[in-house]
Amino acid sequence: MDNNRLGGKSIILRLEMNTNEIKFGQVASAIFEAGGDIVAIDVIQTSQNMTVRDITITVTDTVDIGIITESVRSLNGVRLVNISDRTFLLHLGGKIETRPKTPIQNRDDLSRVYTPDVARVCMAIHEEPRKAFTLTVKRNTVAVISDGSAVLGLGNIGPYAAMPVMEGKSMLFKQFADVDSFPICLDTQDTEQIIAAIKAIAPGFGGINLEDISSPRCFEIERRLREELDIPVFHDDQHGTAVVLYAALINALKIVHKSIDEIKVVICGIGAAGIACSKILLSAGIKEIIGVDRNGALSAGKNYENSMWQWYAEHTNPNRIEGSLQEVIQGADVFIGLSAGGLLRREDVMTMADDPIVFAMANPTPEIKPEEVEDIAAVIATGRSDYPNQINNVLCFPGIFRGALDCRASTINEEMKLAAAEAIASAISDEERNRLYIIPSVFNQQVVKAIRDLVIKAAIKTGVARRIPREYR
Amino acid sequence: MDNNRLGGKSIILRLEMNTNEIKFGQVASAIFEAGGDIVAIDVIQTSQNMTVRDITITVTDTVDIGIITESVRSLNGVRLVNISDRTFLLHLGGKIETRPKTPIQNRDDLSRVYTPDVARVCMAIHEEPRKAFTLTVKRNTVAVISDGSAVLGLGNIGPYAAMPVMEGKSMLFKQFADVDSFPICLDTQDTEQIIAAIKAIAPGFGGINLEDISSPRCFEIERRLREELDIPVFHDDQHGTAVVLYAALINALKIVHKSIDEIKVVICGIGAAGIACSKILLSAGIKEIIGVDRNGALSAGKNYENSMWQWYAEHTNPNRIEGSLQEVIQGADVFIGLSAGGLLRREDVMTMADDPIVFAMANPTPEIKPEEVEDIAAVIATGRSDYPNQINNVLCFPGIFRGALDCRASTINEEMKLAAAEAIASAISDEERNRLYIIPSVFNQQVVKAIRDLVIKAAIKTGVARRIPREYR
Repeated sequence: MDNNRLGGKSIILRLEMNTNEIKFGQVASAIFEAGGDIVAIDVIQTSQNMTVRDITITVTDTVDIGIITESVRSLNGVRLVNISDRTFLLHLGGKIETRPKTPIQNRDDLSRVYTPDVARVCMAIHEEPRKAFTLTVKRNTVAVISDGSAVLGLGNIGPYAAMPVMEGKSMLFKQFADVDSFPICLDTQDTEQIIAAIKAIAPGFGGINLEDISSPRCFEIERRLREELDIPVFHDDQHGTAVVLYAALINALKIVHKSIDEIKVVICGIGAAGIACSKILLSAGIKEIIGVDRNGALSAGKNYENSMWQWYAEHTNPNRIEGSLQEVIQGADVFIGLSAGGLLRREDVMTMADDPIVFAMANPTPEIKPEEVEDIAAVIATGRSDYPNQINNVLCFPGIFRGALDCRASTINEEMKLAAAEAIASAISDEERNRLYIIPSVFNQQVVKAIRDLVIKAAIKTGVARRIPREYR
Repeated sequence: MDNNRLGGKSIILRLEMNTNEIKFGQVASAIFEAGGDIVAIDVIQTSQNMTVRDITITVTDTVDIGIITESVRSLNGVRLVNISDRTFLLHLGGKIETRPKTPIQNRDDLSRVYTPDVARVCMAIHEEPRKAFTLTVKRNTVAVISDGSAVLGLGNIGPYAAMPVMEGKSMLFKQFADVDSFPICLDTQDTEQIIAAIKAIAPGFGGINLEDISSPRCFEIERRLREELDIPVFHDDQHGTAVVLYAALINALKIVHKSIDEIKVVICGIGAAGIACSKILLSAGIKEIIGVDRNGALSAGKNYENSMWQWYAEHTNPNRIEGSLQEVIQGADVFIGLSAGGLLRREDVMTMADDPIVFAMANPTPEIKPEEVEDIAAVIATGRSDYPNQINNVLCFPGIFRGALDCRASTINEEMKLAAAEAIASAISDEERNRLYIIPSVFNQQVVKAIRDLVIKAAIKTGVARRIPREYR
């Protein structure tokens, strides 16, 4: 997950000032000295001796908002009427709305979009169910579904508190890829009940984006839904991360002139994202992947209680290397961290192969801070927006669903994920590419289009497209 | 349900014409003679000898579109390129979309509506769950849910084919009352599975509008959800119809100068809507209600297999009148039909009390056609828009949910329904009211506001409002 700390916080103070007692300059000085940066002033009301103004103030995370408000309160002639927080203001009443695509202006419109004429459309779908894809919102709508069990880094905060994240995701779907989506937070954390509820509500949707569901339940839920539904089911925490990571690796390898089939990769943190990243790298042709978790390298022949670890040990680490992270990282070309802050040391990186690639994606603190190894690592990426090369799954999910919906894909398969990664990597040209720029910005408008095109081609090639868009016929 | 047949159908013919061989006037004549009315012409392409035009044609239901297209095809120099149907065009890709309320224009916006800053909003809800009502879409969003088992008059057409109706309902919610809503069609018709799925998805919604679920399952589903959820659950086919019917009756009684507590009402058709209408009339203070179904009047002391009929017989018909519709209607002040076309005869109406009120709401054919009794009935209403006084539940659901959401009602109770009916009735002034105008138009913009106000007052009075809007404090 993105963990941008650049934005800081914005607050808006509504101040009533007695203009006989105080000048605005004195107020501004007090705010500045307390660590606040005034970015906007709106005059709300004014009379002969009194003025009410909204002062928008940005503060970095290290600044205590309480000190600013205390400092303002201590001034004579100033009354602090209200404190608003811009982030909370943006959330008032929720962040998305549903709208008719055409207005209902008269009886004729009403009779077409509702009874009686809508009955003809209903019957057309009843007679030929695949028309649901042309005549209903199914064509362009994805459900964003969570049970609130593993939200961001906040843990199991439940369905009500998870809604703002899912609404945010719906905004991104529309803004970046014109995909309609609706956030659904489930009031159950029982695997079977989750599966049953999602299957029950699926008819109106063209795809299911699972989000922030804790491991290992997320594997079973996704596997079953993929088997039992005929629309794409995509657990973004796993596959979105994996796609963007692989995109970053494609470009990093170009910088160090290494080939994907001859590198040794160590992945630290074998949870949902770590397993998904490993799978996509295996599909991409990497031969030597060593997974490391609390007890060191996962290796075939050992017994693991966690069945995913058992599977993992049997499908990676062909040379059955054992040992701690510090031991197995020796000679590795690539480190991929999806674990916890500070696990990797500079001396570990020094034992890696020439031109080491370090992707330290733990949030909020990376496995190693880029500044500690920027002189010895060839390429560094993190999950944070305040360092170069942010691995951010916002780069993937809008485009991959855009492609899947446009060709009515029945699933999002491995080939489509690889294609999405190649599309993201290709958004940076040979001329642009350098060690500080291997991943495009989430605001790069070419990315969605590039992903869509390659994903549709991959879907057609693998036989999961149920519609061939005109430009691919 | 509304069964407006006035709109007719629109088709759009794309014609390629060789201008050396034919003039547009000849084409227009042919269309006119075949029964089509040209309402728009769009020139798509034109060259020296050729022109392509889209001709929008309206036809009444009695006209065969095939005759029009055959007639056009038979003309020399005309090629029929394509036929489009306006209703189907309006449904392409679905009728609603989801949109961000504010655009995400830069990194700062992104970090507020999504990670990392959204985490502060999530935690605020986690610490105080009722904040879900202010900080998420729950404040203004209703789920429109069907299992596709009893859609319009089409029967059990399933969830895919039901979607256009639910999407239409979502459009109406937004257009008439600024309520956001999302259509959910369930891929199960099992009562327990429906209840479980709706309970699972409830956290993000401020209300549940059940729709087109067949009887008797609809009673159990609604009852259980009302007990087990803390947001309003409203089966519109039952209660929407009941509210609008009662509104119509309030105004009809004013015309005939009868008091509600002294009338005798016969209700024909004791299904979901008939039972709901009877309940609201009992709540409104009507003492003598006689329900009639296939085997005649329902009466206490008889045994019924259908448990709802048993309940009904015990709570209505205080004088235990028995007999057929023809027998029990004698001396009745009001006939309410929710059954099937043609069940009521002119001679039956002649046996009713003075100034009989006839609400013949069967669709598409009323229990008796208004023209058969317009000289002897004091007031007539139907479910159709091509007669005066249409009982249309579009009048109720937008406003009643607007009120319920604005005061965060935990339920929609009987008092709120009665209040909604009084609000609808009050939209017609004493001066305006006459036997052909007892119900306002669905496009009357005062209705939603009037319902909202009275519904909020009723919710506050009955203690189910969890927020008192400022204007009611």
